[in-house]
Amino acid sequence: MVRWEPGAKERLQVAALDLFVEGGYEQTTVQDIAAAAGLTERTFFRHFADKREVLFAGGAEYRATFVDGVLNAPDGLGAFDYVRAALTAAAGFFAPERRPWSRKRQRVIDANPALLERESLKRAALGEAIAGALRDRGVQDPDARLAAETGVVVFHTAFTQWIAEGEERTLLEVEQEVLDRLTAIVPA
Amino acid sequence: MVRWEPGAKERLQVAALDLFVEGGYEQTTVQDIAAAAGLTERTFFRHFADKREVLFAGGAEYRATFVDGVLNAPDGLGAFDYVRAALTAAAGFFAPERRPWSRKRQRVIDANPALLERESLKRAALGEAIAGALRDRGVQDPDARLAAETGVVVFHTAFTQWIAEGEERTLLEVEQEVLDRLTAIVPA
Repeated sequence: MVRWEPGAKERLQVAALDLFVEGGYEQTTVQDIAAAAGLTERTFFRHFADKREVLFAGGAEYRATFVDGVLNAPDGLGAFDYVRAALTAAAGFFAPERRPWSRKRQRVIDANPALLERESLKRAALGEAIAGALRDRGVQDPDARLAAETGVVVFHTAFTQWIAEGEERTLLEVEQEVLDRLTAIVPA
Repeated sequence: MVRWEPGAKERLQVAALDLFVEGGYEQTTVQDIAAAAGLTERTFFRHFADKREVLFAGGAEYRATFVDGVLNAPDGLGAFDYVRAALTAAAGFFAPERRPWSRKRQRVIDANPALLERESLKRAALGEAIAGALRDRGVQDPDARLAAETGVVVFHTAFTQWIAEGEERTLLEVEQEVLDRLTAIVPA
């Protein structure tokens, strides 16, 4: 009989991230993670296919946040205003209480080339997802792809700043600053 | 004694790409590639660390083209004009005679998730390289990063169109069109 462990997934994620930061991602085993969370390996594998998935779980939900931002925006906007709606939605997803987790996660990823490859691919998938939503709203290519990819650049730039040590502004505030810089850089 | 094989590297690359397209990347062995090129495996490994490197060799030269474009541009330009200089240099690198190779290479990469991860990372490295060149020209962050990443988006969008079946314009012409779309999408 499988016993339900309330909050097991979150406990495993928190324990894993602490172990990755302290002892290194490669050196940490699933056994270590389960033990630190006070759970069994079997419970771990009910929630995650492997160790790497602790860092990449929720990717579909993450992309859906941006996509829903586009799909729930008013009709008749320009491509870039749909992207703004996606960025606003993303800022809701990355609420201030998520910042410490995001900071630690990035440290682990930056230290491991294989994780960086996976993270790059995740970013590419985000661009595809937003471009698809823009097409659903009637934006044609190449504008849909271009606006989506530019939005990902803005998001990534803002996110990197948001998790910088000492940064206290919300993600929405940082995104707004980056959008302002973009419009200043790109000639009319 | 090592016998010098003139053009061995290029012969291996052409043979490998044809085999990857016809028989699949996973199914093709280094032995197959060497045999198809009329060379030995030992010669293969003098030029490439492994099978994957046939597709990713020359990455440093590729990045250097964009970087040199920025570094050789006139003084005192805005961030975006330096990026334009990088894109113009890249269009020189991807001359029309390179297009059939680029088309085949992309087909192989698109069919293989592990190669796509590597390609995504290559794209991230390009953004880093251009951002570094912009900083050398006096552009501050976040503008340097933002302009560089936006330039990579423009390049990638243009490149994807350039290798589309039936596309006959030069990469420079397609880049110009994509730049025009970008300036139309991003509000002043």
